Amino acid sequence: MNEFEIIQKFFTQSLKREDIILGSGDDCALVYSNQPIAITTDTLIEGVHFLKNTSAYDIGYKALAVNLSDLAAMGAEPAWITIALTIPEANELWLTEFSQGLFELANRFKIQLIGGDLTKGSLQMTISAYGFIPASKALRRNAAIPGDLIYVTHTIGDAALALSFLLKKTTPPQTILKKLTQPEPRIEIGKKLREIAHAAIDISDGLAADLNHILKKSHVGAILYVDQLPLSHFLCESVSSIDAIEFALYGGDDYELCFTIPPDKINDLSFDCTCVGEITKNTGLNLLFSDGKKYYGKKQGYQHFL
Amino acid sequence: MNEFEIIQKFFTQSLKREDIILGSGDDCALVYSNQPIAITTDTLIEGVHFLKNTSAYDIGYKALAVNLSDLAAMGAEPAWITIALTIPEANELWLTEFSQGLFELANRFKIQLIGGDLTKGSLQMTISAYGFIPASKALRRNAAIPGDLIYVTHTIGDAALALSFLLKKTTPPQTILKKLTQPEPRIEIGKKLREIAHAAIDISDGLAADLNHILKKSHVGAILYVDQLPLSHFLCESVSSIDAIEFALYGGDDYELCFTIPPDKINDLSFDCTCVGEITKNTGLNLLFSDGKKYYGKKQGYQHFL
Repeated sequence: MNEFEIIQKFFTQSLKREDIILGSGDDCALVYSNQPIAITTDTLIEGVHFLKNTSAYDIGYKALAVNLSDLAAMGAEPAWITIALTIPEANELWLTEFSQGLFELANRFKIQLIGGDLTKGSLQMTISAYGFIPASKALRRNAAIPGDLIYVTHTIGDAALALSFLLKKTTPPQTILKKLTQPEPRIEIGKKLREIAHAAIDISDGLAADLNHILKKSHVGAILYVDQLPLSHFLCESVSSIDAIEFALYGGDDYELCFTIPPDKINDLSFDCTCVGEITKNTGLNLLFSDGKKYYGKKQGYQHFL
Repeated sequence: MNEFEIIQKFFTQSLKREDIILGSGDDCALVYSNQPIAITTDTLIEGVHFLKNTSAYDIGYKALAVNLSDLAAMGAEPAWITIALTIPEANELWLTEFSQGLFELANRFKIQLIGGDLTKGSLQMTISAYGFIPASKALRRNAAIPGDLIYVTHTIGDAALALSFLLKKTTPPQTILKKLTQPEPRIEIGKKLREIAHAAIDISDGLAADLNHILKKSHVGAILYVDQLPLSHFLCESVSSIDAIEFALYGGDDYELCFTIPPDKINDLSFDCTCVGEITKNTGLNLLFSDGKKYYGKKQGYQHFL
């Protein structure tokens, strides 16, 4: 099969959105939007962002999920994607499963693939994702205000825990494994946050590192209560309480949302989330226990090129 | 330097477009357009799309140029780009030169970088480029009509010739080398073609392969006169006349435009271009000399995964 046959066979989608004038198959796609468009792009590389033995389905799913998570963190409604896929060989089984994982998630959010590029090389992929949002409603990193409460959706630390299992050649329970392999982009929560939150970010590098982006952009600081972090039962049972906190703070790959809201909005929170601290005028991230004692962490969030 | 410092130091651009609500530095960029948006994405991989010793400046330039060429082939006006860059190490000199090549071309076309991703791995990059075009003016591959004349801009085959020099460890003249290392995206020609052309495509895989895309999408055929191909003097002097034709037909990497126009529009062509054949009702690509003799070619256009 050549590249055009591969695209035809594995990357043709039945979903047809009305805001697409021209989809895949020409020099460019042609789209339109009456609203501002949120644009994000993320690369996944074998051996860096996923383990070598990861299933093609999970890779396809996650490559899209991490991009949708960025849209969620702005409060955007997903619409279109492009994918630049680099593969070492045209393995039909791999391509079948990869595209199934990709389109399972794409179709669920009514997202249409509008183009891409297919090249030969070591396995990696770059997806660009596009969504709509009224400009004044976008959740930015620079909008946290002293006095805001800091929240985190669902639980964090499970993806890092799952990775630690896989690296030891053991398998965690399915619900924990899925937090790593098929993270849920919090699109619906992001849309609800448009009316509630000041600042938001998705947690890809660990809560501490990602919250720090909000703090720096907003020129504020924060107190984070490490014993209030939302941890799964399995995480708490699997490792020491300190290690559980470390996984949550520095583990990354959770793709939950971290957001800040003014205290008078807490009754508007109609989804699973936990208050983990507050924004302060003093800059810097202050890690405390609820009794006021200082927490001394071990690690930092994941960074390339450190 | 970590990834955020690299982005700050090498990928901050002074150009600020008014259609960008939010540029780099948040979960997503936010942009708007009153016109339909053309979207394209292309990956370049070291050792596949450029030689290992290619200068960082040329890589940055070409990574953008090939994407702009796709916009040109639709008749679109460039506006924004994102870049997903994978590099093996944070080499400051390399990053300086790469970003200089990228921004030289971006600034010339008033294109703003609105986001991206930076990862560690073997050298490759995926740029997505965005441009504007009135929907009814877009130059599609499926719009060629029997009787249309087929044109090619400037000269073709020079990029493949330059590559053949480099592979033999020799250096062609600067003007020929630049056709390979710094191809000129034909943006202005593409915009003029909006009012003139039926179908258009940019020549990335060789004229024969790319014209074939137009033929298949338009359900038509073509006669191509191989002795009417626009070849540079240097190409004609460097190789046999048959090899010169082969470079032009199958060499690829030219990034000139191939387009079809109705015969009554030839007086509207106000730029460097050459008629190389005509669209026929009978399908298939017919390679002839002007005296009607059949041309027997040797090769095919470049395809991944053949």
